[in-house]
Amino acid sequence: MARPRSFNEQDVLLQVMQIFWKSGYEATSLSDIMRETGLSKSSLYETFGSKRELFLSSFEVYRQMRMRTLNGYLTSQPTAMASIRYFFMMILEHARHQERPFGCMSCNEAVELAPHDEEVHRLVERDFQGIEDALAEAIERGIRDGSVPSGKNARALARHMTVAHHGFMMMSRSRADIRRLEDTIEVLLMLLC
Amino acid sequence: MARPRSFNEQDVLLQVMQIFWKSGYEATSLSDIMRETGLSKSSLYETFGSKRELFLSSFEVYRQMRMRTLNGYLTSQPTAMASIRYFFMMILEHARHQERPFGCMSCNEAVELAPHDEEVHRLVERDFQGIEDALAEAIERGIRDGSVPSGKNARALARHMTVAHHGFMMMSRSRADIRRLEDTIEVLLMLLC
Repeated sequence: MARPRSFNEQDVLLQVMQIFWKSGYEATSLSDIMRETGLSKSSLYETFGSKRELFLSSFEVYRQMRMRTLNGYLTSQPTAMASIRYFFMMILEHARHQERPFGCMSCNEAVELAPHDEEVHRLVERDFQGIEDALAEAIERGIRDGSVPSGKNARALARHMTVAHHGFMMMSRSRADIRRLEDTIEVLLMLLC
Repeated sequence: MARPRSFNEQDVLLQVMQIFWKSGYEATSLSDIMRETGLSKSSLYETFGSKRELFLSSFEVYRQMRMRTLNGYLTSQPTAMASIRYFFMMILEHARHQERPFGCMSCNEAVELAPHDEEVHRLVERDFQGIEDALAEAIERGIRDGSVPSGKNARALARHMTVAHHGFMMMSRSRADIRRLEDTIEVLLMLLC
């Protein structure tokens, strides 16, 4: 009879996600994961499969967690416009968090794996589409609640904001000067006025 | 007496740059570089130093080449506004070039090495600053030649365009749907009207 597992799979995936998010796929070794989680190679393989499968599972944990956070920000304020501003202000907060400048895991994998890995390419595309859809929905809500002028093209603006989001996240990860990001968020929000 | 070298150092650096640009630092092995350049390990070490030194030299070749191209685009058209549009149209052209979706080497290294490598962090920052300065200069030129309305904040707009540039390059590298990029370039250029 197999002994019951003495660890919570979801907790382990959260730990593993942090490692891949921080260091990327290639630079993360199985030894790093074993050291960080305290689990043996056989426990990891038995429960989660290969390094690649572990990566894909933790990437999915990231995607779900981030979409919840993003949707939370985008509905946090009295108006949609204020919520969109809050979402971008939170990006600045993230960039200021100097001990943890991991950026966006999907953006990181857009650079690292998506160029040559079909499965990761599709996952990154799906996540980027999710960000765009959430922003488009918020802009449309803003048009309805009167905080965004009517006549704005919600889809085109959401696409632009998604591209800008990726740029912010890349600069945040590379520890860019925050003042540069502050300026540019104000320019971005002018598009909604 | 040492035999004369039978290869051109600059040509080799251009080849090596392509490999690092495409695959990043970690995923590139010395064997990849030997296979691609046809040079032996000892020739490479003797001429260029370690893998890291080879990377830094080829990154500098990239930076100089890209700044020349960028400055060329930004002065290619009768007005500064038309030149800025041309610059972003060239980003779309690059993204359509499906066989070679390498993105921007500085953006790639902003994700891969800059978070934990001080020297690469400084090189990436310098390159991003160079892009911002070139765009700010073009916008100021546009205000002088009448193609951009006076009263625009050239520096803030250039910063936003630099962030958008990084987002475009990331999406281009991850083989994103080009239509999404087309929409968003039009939104970006509206900021200059």
